[in-house]
Amino acid sequence: MRRSSILPRMPHIDLPPGLPGITAGFAFRPETAAPMRALAEVLLRGPNTLTSGERELIATFVSSENNCSFCRDSHRAAAAHHLDGNYDLVDAVRHDFVAAPVSDKLKALLAIAAKVRQDGKLVARADIERARASGATDIEIHDTVLIAAAFSMFNRYVDGLATVTPTDEAVYDEMGRRMAADGYLRPRT
Amino acid sequence: MRRSSILPRMPHIDLPPGLPGITAGFAFRPETAAPMRALAEVLLRGPNTLTSGERELIATFVSSENNCSFCRDSHRAAAAHHLDGNYDLVDAVRHDFVAAPVSDKLKALLAIAAKVRQDGKLVARADIERARASGATDIEIHDTVLIAAAFSMFNRYVDGLATVTPTDEAVYDEMGRRMAADGYLRPRT
Repeated sequence: MRRSSILPRMPHIDLPPGLPGITAGFAFRPETAAPMRALAEVLLRGPNTLTSGERELIATFVSSENNCSFCRDSHRAAAAHHLDGNYDLVDAVRHDFVAAPVSDKLKALLAIAAKVRQDGKLVARADIERARASGATDIEIHDTVLIAAAFSMFNRYVDGLATVTPTDEAVYDEMGRRMAADGYLRPRT
Repeated sequence: MRRSSILPRMPHIDLPPGLPGITAGFAFRPETAAPMRALAEVLLRGPNTLTSGERELIATFVSSENNCSFCRDSHRAAAAHHLDGNYDLVDAVRHDFVAAPVSDKLKALLAIAAKVRQDGKLVARADIERARASGATDIEIHDTVLIAAAFSMFNRYVDGLATVTPTDEAVYDEMGRRMAADGYLRPRT
């Protein structure tokens, strides 16, 4: 498990104590938490021809590339819990998705996500054609673009507030289990 | 008015025709539009000690730095409509906020937004202390971080789908008038 930061951070503002990562921002500002939770829920768990495992892989990959350790490690665990506990598959996607044992369609979608994470204008017609040729629908392409865009937000929110980042892998495993089982709509207490 | 692209783009996926920018993505996927609209509404128009004009300036600045012409030009117009039509002030903030005739507090918040736009981890304790010294509250700092993060999402969404970008300044002026007057919750038809 890569770590960008081992030492616990002190948040930049007076966030409620004892809450890890984004959950502290959510507790501090329920007015903005509600639509952010709703967006995560529909993107990662709503009805979709992409599985939740596939969508969590995209979220994990984007968070990993953005080096947001809280989002990376929590969604890594959520993805694994959707994929029969297969952390090796999640890490294979994180480290080199082109060589990872996933479908050509998911590889094409991850290539789009990699560009959106940097700048949406980098997505080229050829990227879309490749995704379509491997079977991706317009909704799948749309949702991939938006998952990459949304995690560009979540990552900056978590890091811009310097929220507390747990360092114990077991904490993330339990967090990911609950994210996969219970979703994003309610506070995890 | 800077233009990153004069030629109309053809969207990457089959979006509803005749709708500019993000509104086409919203019409294509109402399930994700609802929480994105709700987030924009609370961030830019909800109860706040920052005025809507100040918050639209932050949104415009981030979109301008991200070179998302649709978001930049529409929120530029919304900001101007909140500020007695003062487009010169909006452009002064876009081009050099340090020299712009705005409060020290807003300058300190814009400096935080400039860092979050790149990477939340760039925000330093000194940036927060400067904002606090100029009178910023924790909620104002939180919302600045989240406006910058959210527009990092909106910008990537608009550009990652290659939505249609109007080129007529009068279109943006009218769009901004409606955004300032009516807000973000309902489709603008």
